[in-house]
Amino acid sequence: MFHGMTRAARYLGARTLAVAEARPVPPAPGQVRIDVAYTGICGTDLHILHGAMDHRVRVPAVIGHEMSGRIAELGEGVRGHAVGDPVTVMPLDWCGQCPACRVGHTHICHRLNFIGVDSTGSMQGSWTVPATILVPLPADLALEHAALIEPTAVAVHDVRRSRLAAGEHAVVIGAGPVGLLIATVARARGAAVTVLELDAHRRAVAAGLGLTTVDPAAVDVARQVREQTGDAGADVVFEVSGSAAAVRTATDLLAVRGRLVMVAIHSRPREVDLHRVFWRELEMIGVRVYQRDDYEEAIRLVRDGHVPSDRLISRIVALDDVAEAFEALEAGGDVKILLDCGGAR
Amino acid sequence: MFHGMTRAARYLGARTLAVAEARPVPPAPGQVRIDVAYTGICGTDLHILHGAMDHRVRVPAVIGHEMSGRIAELGEGVRGHAVGDPVTVMPLDWCGQCPACRVGHTHICHRLNFIGVDSTGSMQGSWTVPATILVPLPADLALEHAALIEPTAVAVHDVRRSRLAAGEHAVVIGAGPVGLLIATVARARGAAVTVLELDAHRRAVAAGLGLTTVDPAAVDVARQVREQTGDAGADVVFEVSGSAAAVRTATDLLAVRGRLVMVAIHSRPREVDLHRVFWRELEMIGVRVYQRDDYEEAIRLVRDGHVPSDRLISRIVALDDVAEAFEALEAGGDVKILLDCGGAR
Ligand SMILES: [Zn+2]
Ligand SMILES: [Zn+2]
Ligand SMILES: [Zn+2]
Ligand SMILES: [Zn+2]
Repeated sequence: MFHGMTRAARYLGARTLAVAEARPVPPAPGQVRIDVAYTGICGTDLHILHGAMDHRVRVPAVIGHEMSGRIAELGEGVRGHAVGDPVTVMPLDWCGQCPACRVGHTHICHRLNFIGVDSTGSMQGSWTVPATILVPLPADLALEHAALIEPTAVAVHDVRRSRLAAGEHAVVIGAGPVGLLIATVARARGAAVTVLELDAHRRAVAAGLGLTTVDPAAVDVARQVREQTGDAGADVVFEVSGSAAAVRTATDLLAVRGRLVMVAIHSRPREVDLHRVFWRELEMIGVRVYQRDDYEEAIRLVRDGHVPSDRLISRIVALDDVAEAFEALEAGGDVKILLDCGGAR
Repeated sequence: MFHGMTRAARYLGARTLAVAEARPVPPAPGQVRIDVAYTGICGTDLHILHGAMDHRVRVPAVIGHEMSGRIAELGEGVRGHAVGDPVTVMPLDWCGQCPACRVGHTHICHRLNFIGVDSTGSMQGSWTVPATILVPLPADLALEHAALIEPTAVAVHDVRRSRLAAGEHAVVIGAGPVGLLIATVARARGAAVTVLELDAHRRAVAAGLGLTTVDPAAVDVARQVREQTGDAGADVVFEVSGSAAAVRTATDLLAVRGRLVMVAIHSRPREVDLHRVFWRELEMIGVRVYQRDDYEEAIRLVRDGHVPSDRLISRIVALDDVAEAFEALEAGGDVKILLDCGGAR
């Protein structure tokens, strides 16, 4: 079968990304080749560019895992999919044998391959993957919006693990893309949501989404949350900032039996007020990626507009401009930037 | 009604306990007067003697909350109890109005009165209490053993909050009285239990109860737990030691989705490996006292011998020897010392 050439962005190490011609990979049995429409850039990709994940990434590496596209070619034995189908992927490949997989926690497999980090990702026009990771998309979902399904699935997973119920009060610490998605997913569940964010621009973005925002540097947040909740405190706090101070204050915000969901990755141990954990019977809940059910709910939330995709996607740039897009994200001011990978519409 | 005099141990502040004559208090409406048979001495009582709880205890104070006895006298309007009935108490008095009480978490009431700390306790021959805190005892349960029901209810509560299931692997860090009770309750649930304890004498006591013990100073515990669990790790870790080092290593012992139950009271913030919490989707669960259901299960476990009462009660001393009993406990070597309060048999 004839394949034209396509383009791919590659991380070369040393804080360098380069775009070049690439030859599409014909799908082996059980694989599909996807024409990639859009790939979102996420915090993990920034960490990779900074070299923080060089122990996992083999250069030169095509990275990227938040994507949408259409099936271009089916490998032998692939059933239930057709060329032209709109898809995204759940970029997890697990071993099936380790203690986590054996009890069904495949998303936290001891030997998890996170596709786009540990193996080739979607910042290219043509991407060949195992058919098992495909997630079919509804025909009426714009492919731009579909690129938000992976990060939305993260938020859905975090909210699900928190057991947040309608009528409860949630506090989200940190209004980056993940924090905003958690806040909108929590709101869609019928919770009252307060977003804490030090940065004025990010607060303005959150407010623009209709969220209640607070500057924790200007306000006694614990007191304000008590006042908002009839002296009870918040039912759930999502720690999405990664700061040591946020961990210290999160426990102060929580009601009796409140849940603290640790979303941010804290690479160093943090001080936790364990006396408060005891005194109020708090819970701390670790969360990592997502499971298949989270994708199904994420698709519903994006399609139904509960996730305000157009406001979260600050812009769409050509794949060839990937380096500038990463720079813009670091400079701040954007929420989510999509790369137009050119492979499908 | 005539009341003879009785004796009472009082904390006077300044690390002093004194025993003196006391006049029994006639029960007001809704109260009962109990002839106290036995009162156990617990870690909280030691803290009180050390002055660590002087902000809560009003001296001179009769302390003590782990007790058994018989009803001696009923106040007006008390129904469902009779003079001579064997009883213990759940020493919690809640406000009924605060946000915690309103949602049914009365045991962690914002204004909880812990009887025996915040108000008069049971280290006396005659004790007058609200009938609402009474817990009736089976007639065939020895009153010595019944004095262990309160600390057993603590252990039952901790194990229940951990969601420990039969066939799971639990690690208990710290083999003091609470740690030993948690270990025996976990074993009664059908879990495999490993007890970590630095002190050789305490390890010997645990081994004498048929528990698997490990000296964490001599062994790579994380490795040993992995080997015991087919590389999975422990399902539940109970942190009962209060040490910063235990908190640091507890997360290393846990399997994917494992639960860390914070039983010990850490009065200072502790460093927690939040990266591990994220990576394995761990949970940390705060626990405090107990609820009524925990008492019912504690009574069953003590009566059926799952809690090896005779081995846990190292000795029974006269109330007049309370000061020596506290000294002996601090010196180590005892598990649980009961005071014979002389009020009932
Ligand atoms: Zn991502
Ligand atoms: Zn696995
Ligand atoms: Zn106690
Ligand atoms: Zn209350």
